[in-house]
Amino acid sequence: MQDRIAAQLAFLTEADRLKSVLRGTTLCDGSRPENAGEHSWHIALYAMVMAEHANRPVDINRVIRMLLIHDLVEIDAGDNPIHGDHDPAEMEAVEQAAAARIFGLLPADQARDFRALWDEFEAAETDDAIFAKSIDRVQPVIANLETDGGSWPAYNVTAAQLQSRVGDKVMRGAPAIWAALRTRIDQWFHTG
Amino acid sequence: MQDRIAAQLAFLTEADRLKSVLRGTTLCDGSRPENAGEHSWHIALYAMVMAEHANRPVDINRVIRMLLIHDLVEIDAGDNPIHGDHDPAEMEAVEQAAAARIFGLLPADQARDFRALWDEFEAAETDDAIFAKSIDRVQPVIANLETDGGSWPAYNVTAAQLQSRVGDKVMRGAPAIWAALRTRIDQWFHTG
Repeated sequence: MQDRIAAQLAFLTEADRLKSVLRGTTLCDGSRPENAGEHSWHIALYAMVMAEHANRPVDINRVIRMLLIHDLVEIDAGDNPIHGDHDPAEMEAVEQAAAARIFGLLPADQARDFRALWDEFEAAETDDAIFAKSIDRVQPVIANLETDGGSWPAYNVTAAQLQSRVGDKVMRGAPAIWAALRTRIDQWFHTG
Repeated sequence: MQDRIAAQLAFLTEADRLKSVLRGTTLCDGSRPENAGEHSWHIALYAMVMAEHANRPVDINRVIRMLLIHDLVEIDAGDNPIHGDHDPAEMEAVEQAAAARIFGLLPADQARDFRALWDEFEAAETDDAIFAKSIDRVQPVIANLETDGGSWPAYNVTAAQLQSRVGDKVMRGAPAIWAALRTRIDQWFHTG
């Protein structure tokens, strides 16, 4: 039992480092970059509030757990902004190694369960994972709208790119949320 | 539907401000104070990993949801370190007003549900709430142990005070976790 708790605490202490991984977007008041730890909290809360807008039935508790662990690999792999430049194949290899190391800190049964949940999120094939990905994609859009485009100008994002990189993915799992944001998004891109 | 989503997004955007509420403890590397948003993520992850150590049966999904919303009132009320000086009655009044305002941003049915979950956490009477409180109390202890006592010296905390203010409460819901930490805690207070 002591060994088991020690392994769990080692994992939880390592997880603390996610609070130092900075993302491309800022807080909604623009005061500083958001970190991946607080982002993970915010999207879990998003899922809790927005569950009813999933376009297919989801187990919201699984979605929340997925979102709580979805970014842990960034402790080793860093954050890769969706509008940034990176090699997807190289990135995937780095993230796979990170998942093996970080989830591997847990007792074997939990390491297996957490890894399976993260793999499911990454694959984006089940209804739970598709909705989780929609939520993960929509929160930075709000942060950008709240900060006059936020990271969009820096990455030279066009309305068409936002639609294909973000909108289409949000619409897979939560079309009603994207529909609700369209007016604000169109307005920003047309006047911005 | 548009009104409902607008209310939900207003709540979620207001929630963003929790990332700017600083706590008495630091990150595990001591680099900066922890904020209440990332703390909320970390303890939800703690609950997910440590569920098996609850000394009574709990619905871990309810515990996680409780922990995701438990600190939102601090947007208005600020963080009150457990070892700090504050008037509990005055604090409670401020937090009640904060809960009314912040949860009140949600559509009425969700405002009621979220408020009820927060009230249950605060009352610390149900098994779910007791375990949630244990988890909320144990995470700062780890942060302090990782940073050579962290906030304990600044607040002149004694081993007896840590036991009565923190240990007894952790033991109510998760005695095995406290037992596992006792050696490290005793060591710090005897050599510190």
